[in-house]
Amino acid sequence: MGGRDEEAHEVHEAPEAHISAIRAVSAPARVAEPAEGISHEELALAARNHGLPLEALRYDLTPPGLHYVLVHYDIPAADADDWTLTVHGRVRTPLSLDMAALRSFPAVTHRVTMECAGNGRARLTPRPVSQPWLVEAVGTADWTGVPLRTLLAEAGVELNAVEAVFTGADHGVERSVEQDYQRSLPLADATADDPEVLVAYEMNGAPLPPQHGHPLRLVVPGWYGMAHVKWLRDIALTSTHFTGFQQTVAYRYRQSADDPGEPVTRIAPRALMIPPGFPDFMSRARVVRPGPVRLEGRAWSGHAPVTRVEVSTDGGQSWQDAELASMADRDGHVWAWRGWRTTWTATPGTHVLSVRATDAAGHSQPLDQPWNRGGFGNNLVQRIAVLCLPQGD
Amino acid sequence: MGGRDEEAHEVHEAPEAHISAIRAVSAPARVAEPAEGISHEELALAARNHGLPLEALRYDLTPPGLHYVLVHYDIPAADADDWTLTVHGRVRTPLSLDMAALRSFPAVTHRVTMECAGNGRARLTPRPVSQPWLVEAVGTADWTGVPLRTLLAEAGVELNAVEAVFTGADHGVERSVEQDYQRSLPLADATADDPEVLVAYEMNGAPLPPQHGHPLRLVVPGWYGMAHVKWLRDIALTSTHFTGFQQTVAYRYRQSADDPGEPVTRIAPRALMIPPGFPDFMSRARVVRPGPVRLEGRAWSGHAPVTRVEVSTDGGQSWQDAELASMADRDGHVWAWRGWRTTWTATPGTHVLSVRATDAAGHSQPLDQPWNRGGFGNNLVQRIAVLCLPQGD
Repeated sequence: MGGRDEEAHEVHEAPEAHISAIRAVSAPARVAEPAEGISHEELALAARNHGLPLEALRYDLTPPGLHYVLVHYDIPAADADDWTLTVHGRVRTPLSLDMAALRSFPAVTHRVTMECAGNGRARLTPRPVSQPWLVEAVGTADWTGVPLRTLLAEAGVELNAVEAVFTGADHGVERSVEQDYQRSLPLADATADDPEVLVAYEMNGAPLPPQHGHPLRLVVPGWYGMAHVKWLRDIALTSTHFTGFQQTVAYRYRQSADDPGEPVTRIAPRALMIPPGFPDFMSRARVVRPGPVRLEGRAWSGHAPVTRVEVSTDGGQSWQDAELASMADRDGHVWAWRGWRTTWTATPGTHVLSVRATDAAGHSQPLDQPWNRGGFGNNLVQRIAVLCLPQGD
Repeated sequence: MGGRDEEAHEVHEAPEAHISAIRAVSAPARVAEPAEGISHEELALAARNHGLPLEALRYDLTPPGLHYVLVHYDIPAADADDWTLTVHGRVRTPLSLDMAALRSFPAVTHRVTMECAGNGRARLTPRPVSQPWLVEAVGTADWTGVPLRTLLAEAGVELNAVEAVFTGADHGVERSVEQDYQRSLPLADATADDPEVLVAYEMNGAPLPPQHGHPLRLVVPGWYGMAHVKWLRDIALTSTHFTGFQQTVAYRYRQSADDPGEPVTRIAPRALMIPPGFPDFMSRARVVRPGPVRLEGRAWSGHAPVTRVEVSTDGGQSWQDAELASMADRDGHVWAWRGWRTTWTATPGTHVLSVRATDAAGHSQPLDQPWNRGGFGNNLVQRIAVLCLPQGD
């Protein structure tokens, strides 16, 4: 049954004239010039994708329209009544499952914090040119579906399988390569029980919205967003390592164009603060009045539970521990963010607030930017400029 | 009962030290320098607000997470169980209504296309610095609530009332003015039966999402988004014209800083096309294969129904009429967009596709930018660059 084994590895051998035509609209990766503002191309991505407005950190469960969204190509026109997921390659029994068949397996729900690997990219110097996230590409949802390991057990994975390759229905061009969006997971990750990978059909108890993968997506708790393949239509078990664009070209930690780099996998720890007070429309600077100000937000890590959150109100010179939501309150949501809070006594003048998280594995957040050419995994601490008004207003 | 009549006109008299402090974070309106890219401040707005990904024009009714969102300040923490709408000023019987009281009035649903007045701003030269929309700040929803005229009849509007002033719960600073978001409507518009203004509590049959005004917002069919006050908490009937920031400073068609300008009101006609084929991730340029290509999209106007849509596939040199969805199919949704479609035979090479709408009142779309200092009502025709691949691929 391994006849289609290598299908996921097939490279579309386009004619030379096609490749040369496509190069005119599809540039190589680049880094912005020192004085270069955000380009119209970056803006076109920022206008269609969106982050979490930071005040929405108040919701433990992010409503779908506030959860960050990154779509590489177009949102496909997908019809749940017509959807089929195939499982093939190095398996004993290839599967072809419609939505009713998928819903007939016992359903599991996991609360998962998802973050784009490129979160923070637009704050880097020099700036990698791509979707220009500042710090807001995150969200938390309850995802319901079938554990991937259940489906793989049903199909019967052969002994020589090493990876599962996931194909979405979204189709486009990236750096001159025409492709369906594809990513793989090592078999050990694909079949683990914690974190347990889901083939999900519900978000917060409702069918997936179009932009979150309707009708079916992968959810890989603890991993950056690129692993959570949306509009999932095929899973191929392979006996060799997947070398597709999103695995070996994009989503690598590289220092230079010719550095092979390490793969981007799990989420580095990060804490975010709900910006206190109220904003200026244009500068987004915050304004508070003198006196006690509640500072609160959420913190997460894809490596291990967050065990410490520290807050600085003097631009990072000194740090104080914040109070963490108890682990008991989290109902076993170990792959979801954890609430934190503290109180700050604001005094007239300008202040810079920051927050940083540390997880049980000892990972924390840097105070200097962790630069790489793709702008991935940038968990530099958040900085919020706050103006405290004079007394007596 | 007119004792609170002038409340909506009160200017917050802040101490001088407060105003001077706030100026440090809240700049006057400005226009970008010729070579200036999109700034980090504009990007911060683009990352939290979002447009309609244009492929989502395929849905006649936009899912909430795809409908455009513009929030001036923060999304307020609002609790429907705790919400009160007050109606006061030049009325015989001031009202104080909780959500249950509002739901006890007969409910009405209108399908409405909403568009941000600043849509298209980032394509202007010179570029007004504000939320940098390209062309995607639009969406269509079914809004359900109580007709405003029902509430005003209940309150009994006094003969000397000329406007209704609407106050939202969102609070912030704009060009150094601290404010709750406020807009007014002339009484004739507030009490009209077509378009009928709604005090809406449902979007597409569900409670309003936080970013769309939960639990209550104004919906003013045919008007740009600034009129549809979100998180609506107060309606004041006044005997004088409202002079608040969003009415007399922002949202004016001005040619220069000292031009008093005309108010921004109804939506100028616009047609948008679903970009055909598939995109390049970074440039968003479109790729199609040679042969027949379905071109389709939607068109709308806040003045009158759209009666004509024309398509150009040669950069605006020639135009052909597209087929319009029949008015009968629209179920009386005169304030919602209208579908259109045509077929284009793509030939290898690069092409620029455009589309323009004309409404029953004779308004159409310009081929040259209609510049004003705020970047409002810019309904310049859409231009989509398409690469058609060589034959035989």
